[in-house]
Amino acid sequence: MGAAASGQLTVGEPGAARIAVDLLGGDHAPAVVVDGALLACQADPALHLLLVGPLEAAGEVLGALPPGDRARISTLPIAPGDRVESWVESGVRSAVLAVAQGAADAVLSAGNTGATVTSAALGLGRRPGVRRPPLAAVLPTTAGRLVLLDVGSSVDPDEETVVMHARLGSAYASVVHGVSEPRVGLLTIGTERGKGDRLRRALPALLAGIELPGGGRYIGLVEGNDVVTGTVADVVVTDGFTGNVLLKGLETAYAELGPPHHHGRPPDGDSPPRAALLLGVRGTVVVCHGAASGPDLAAGIAFAAQLHRQAAIAAMAEMIETQRGVP
Amino acid sequence: MGAAASGQLTVGEPGAARIAVDLLGGDHAPAVVVDGALLACQADPALHLLLVGPLEAAGEVLGALPPGDRARISTLPIAPGDRVESWVESGVRSAVLAVAQGAADAVLSAGNTGATVTSAALGLGRRPGVRRPPLAAVLPTTAGRLVLLDVGSSVDPDEETVVMHARLGSAYASVVHGVSEPRVGLLTIGTERGKGDRLRRALPALLAGIELPGGGRYIGLVEGNDVVTGTVADVVVTDGFTGNVLLKGLETAYAELGPPHHHGRPPDGDSPPRAALLLGVRGTVVVCHGAASGPDLAAGIAFAAQLHRQAAIAAMAEMIETQRGVP
Repeated sequence: MGAAASGQLTVGEPGAARIAVDLLGGDHAPAVVVDGALLACQADPALHLLLVGPLEAAGEVLGALPPGDRARISTLPIAPGDRVESWVESGVRSAVLAVAQGAADAVLSAGNTGATVTSAALGLGRRPGVRRPPLAAVLPTTAGRLVLLDVGSSVDPDEETVVMHARLGSAYASVVHGVSEPRVGLLTIGTERGKGDRLRRALPALLAGIELPGGGRYIGLVEGNDVVTGTVADVVVTDGFTGNVLLKGLETAYAELGPPHHHGRPPDGDSPPRAALLLGVRGTVVVCHGAASGPDLAAGIAFAAQLHRQAAIAAMAEMIETQRGVP
Repeated sequence: MGAAASGQLTVGEPGAARIAVDLLGGDHAPAVVVDGALLACQADPALHLLLVGPLEAAGEVLGALPPGDRARISTLPIAPGDRVESWVESGVRSAVLAVAQGAADAVLSAGNTGATVTSAALGLGRRPGVRRPPLAAVLPTTAGRLVLLDVGSSVDPDEETVVMHARLGSAYASVVHGVSEPRVGLLTIGTERGKGDRLRRALPALLAGIELPGGGRYIGLVEGNDVVTGTVADVVVTDGFTGNVLLKGLETAYAELGPPHHHGRPPDGDSPPRAALLLGVRGTVVVCHGAASGPDLAAGIAFAAQLHRQAAIAAMAEMIETQRGVP
């Protein structure tokens, strides 16, 4: 301990989690990321942060923490390059590389989704059979938590990409939410024969023919209302365009009106983080909205720490790769 | 008056509206359609209904009305054919033909959307330049009402189809909602350059280059959250797949949590009907969800009557067709 501002975090403490935080990602970066980092540190004494970005922003976090807590902060300075765009994207690239090199356990970014997915695919590597790593979001429903994927990584995906996303989503619900035999549905616009676009007409036969991790079961077609009620599926798979539009609509509705309450649980206390997990890469990468607030970013950091502590990514990968019939 | 059960409705009363109601359309038809027809009749003394479908169901409506009101009901009996599917679809076909022949002023159906759109396009005819008539829904927002289209008619639409839908949506907001210079946005998943799928990357240049009816202005890309807040656009245009998923998600969220309140108005009293209007055809065709309730169907019937009384379809058509540069 004590080696603050060294770019190297202390390892080996029980329960410690070292999160690389992209200070440059997001519409209101670095200010809200600084807020989120502070809130996350205050809430979790075993949290260590590697702050990736401008030294001045990292300094604001350090200056706001009590002296005894400053050893939990390391910095990885990124200086502006010739173009703003490449400078901003270099933040998430460097944060991902810190995980790849063992200097951090997970990444948190609210930056451009495409840059994050590409950085993670190149820097950490994709799992076998994964063409396009999907972003999985978790929504509150009256029946519990629901995994919606992809929420923005894949646009115009082919059938095999969506089938892999269904497998990844089933593993997620099993490992992270503890759902036994997750029910996986395909999002479409009507359950009558012939409804939906080309992709949705081709997918049901493929999804019905595969084995899903964690004892998952493909339960058929679902509609937008089923993502709100959560009564028929634990996992809903769709293309990244539709998933992103639906996620942003529902999250905003729940922010305005209050989230649906899980029957039998207190009204608050079970709202999932407004953050998505990138699946199918060899590491823990959590993504927040570009418009995320400080508390949203703190929740995303806490979510990344939780996933690391439960070794969720490795457990999902093992669940998928030991299955029959997987490349 | 007095010619009940003749298949012919009385015309010429001031404020009268004659709605052809498809008794066979919907997941719970004809029972909920019967309920909706009764509720609509009770709420509007100048309403006349042409009930299209099984005579027994029409008889339930007649039997539940006071004798003095029965003259407002006519029936167009449809007997079961060889196959249930074609029998069900013959209901909406016959209802559309009643409008085409002048026996009714508008159609209401909760049946299969594809069958309704096809029946309307063939039976009433499409307006010039309309390849695929879109369904326009109205959502409540904190800033007022928002038109979302297409919500299920067009899947895999081409660019020109979406451009025409933007024009139709602008005319709708101008005529039906009285919005001056409607702001029209294109739904996508991020406003950074290069975001979205092929369709969304091609559309902005086309939309920026057209004139929109009612003084409408293309305001650029919008996201799922903007459909909830209503602060940046009065009309949001998208493909029918995405629009249907988002509509069903938001309508279910609002049904569970209560709708967003228009600031400055009472909490209830300004919720738009849970019904969509088919645009771009030569007649008034209102569509309810397959899962619509009796009150939803009554609101759909009242909406069809309102549109007829304000001659909305003709006003929109004139607004579009007298514009520069329209085929």
